Amino acid sequence: MSLLVVGSVAFDSLESPYGKVERALGGAATYFAVAASFFAPVNLVAIVGDDFTERDAEIFRGRHIDLDGLERAPGKTFFWAGRYSENLNERVTLATELNVFAQFRPRLPEKYRAAKHVFLANIAPDLQRSVLQQVKGKPKLAALDTMNYWIARTNSELRETLRHVDILMINDAETRQLSNEHNLLRAARHIFKMGPSILVVKRGEYGAMMVGRSGVFCVPAFPLEEPHDPTGAGDSFAGGFMGYLARWGKHGDSALRRAMVYGSVMGSFAVECFGLERLRTLKMREITARARHFAKLTQFRL
Amino acid sequence: MSLLVVGSVAFDSLESPYGKVERALGGAATYFAVAASFFAPVNLVAIVGDDFTERDAEIFRGRHIDLDGLERAPGKTFFWAGRYSENLNERVTLATELNVFAQFRPRLPEKYRAAKHVFLANIAPDLQRSVLQQVKGKPKLAALDTMNYWIARTNSELRETLRHVDILMINDAETRQLSNEHNLLRAARHIFKMGPSILVVKRGEYGAMMVGRSGVFCVPAFPLEEPHDPTGAGDSFAGGFMGYLARWGKHGDSALRRAMVYGSVMGSFAVECFGLERLRTLKMREITARARHFAKLTQFRL
Repeated sequence: MSLLVVGSVAFDSLESPYGKVERALGGAATYFAVAASFFAPVNLVAIVGDDFTERDAEIFRGRHIDLDGLERAPGKTFFWAGRYSENLNERVTLATELNVFAQFRPRLPEKYRAAKHVFLANIAPDLQRSVLQQVKGKPKLAALDTMNYWIARTNSELRETLRHVDILMINDAETRQLSNEHNLLRAARHIFKMGPSILVVKRGEYGAMMVGRSGVFCVPAFPLEEPHDPTGAGDSFAGGFMGYLARWGKHGDSALRRAMVYGSVMGSFAVECFGLERLRTLKMREITARARHFAKLTQFRL
Repeated sequence: MSLLVVGSVAFDSLESPYGKVERALGGAATYFAVAASFFAPVNLVAIVGDDFTERDAEIFRGRHIDLDGLERAPGKTFFWAGRYSENLNERVTLATELNVFAQFRPRLPEKYRAAKHVFLANIAPDLQRSVLQQVKGKPKLAALDTMNYWIARTNSELRETLRHVDILMINDAETRQLSNEHNLLRAARHIFKMGPSILVVKRGEYGAMMVGRSGVFCVPAFPLEEPHDPTGAGDSFAGGFMGYLARWGKHGDSALRRAMVYGSVMGSFAVECFGLERLRTLKMREITARARHFAKLTQFRL
């Protein structure tokens, strides 16, 4: 089953202790689409400027990623520049240029409107909602990511959008900010009242935690000796997670657990190299092998 | 098989948003001994002052804890006072009074000297080493805990002691400080050169991670809605971990994984109430049930 994503396609300039890249292709929807496309066909809704070339689009070619929803507008593509601290656990934003993104009004091509699986990457909550409104009927599964900016600035818009989604997928700081609760279990109970029935908390080097009706499931981050660039890890996680669920078609507890593992697998590959470099060359057999490695990392018999 | 522990028995005054207690029994060796005694007989080596009453000793009675190594000295028992922040993730020390602990020179009763399993709780590294030297032959398994103070102040003493232990069991900040490496896998490789062949990193609310010859194993922290007091969580973890291994007698990869789970189980109970309150009333069937719950928390099938 295909998977609809709306979000940013961007150019990123990144610095980490491992090096730097200038204007590399990035953006939440890009990471998501590439990661998810290993599992299910992806329909991409985003906007780029006229500096976005055919060469940039190559990352999407040869994958099951439909670009009819990728709008091209006069002007420049969204640009972000950031620098990571020595241990990659902090980052400073050096530049954010919205460019064409400032005028983005997502429009779903007719063929996207039957979407059963929808991922609303981190953009303004009213735009996220407008995408859901263009989908015919209720999707089987809608998931949403957001960030501190929207939680603080457009809280009521976000609350309105959350009423219509099944899964909220954010990091621990965002979970605490949105729920006004430090404890993640209590935070989850608050968030369930807002609409979602599943909360996925991304915890960076500590892995991810899912809280749902059937309890809690935790998956660690894959231990890497030399992560190079955390950019896109959360979106790649979301891509693996939603991609797996779209492929599997059912969303019971055991499928959700596997989705958490495949999400973590994709996130772990994303951070191995700068930008999309690692995902670009990734093979399905490497994904499968790493998923098995996650089993070795966590399994025990009493 | 019995398990030897050396460390502190103390009185703790604790404050957290959930309340406060004055001069409650605490200390690393106390938490360790009580937690471990659910699994294996414990021989306790520690020192208390003349303010330590028969009533204080009740926590050890009716458990498999031998007190012949509990020295009573004139003066006061080690005292610690601390206050936890609103979210329990930070604490300030309000008072540390070493009292009789300042003169502590651990002496093993003859019957303790055949110890095959030894836990050196967080005390001065030369005292830890003196305990190992009193053990006849090489123990099957020796584990050590330490803290920032010893890593900074008595580094060469600590290094000398580490040469003789199999397992180092510390938190992530201590791991980074000792190895001078932020990345925990690289840190583990440094630490293996110091002597231990297994590193157990305690990560508080994020669980624990074991790095050994057969790779990495991660266990999450048990999700609790209302942890009351983190004091003793790490020592209770160590007690469950070493207690399980002493009971099982073998230390292969699958036993070590189960030890990590039982360690996490005991740590999770410890934080539920103030001081030793929860461990005091804990039943073996509750431990077994929570271990099964850990399976539910982490297990998946690909």
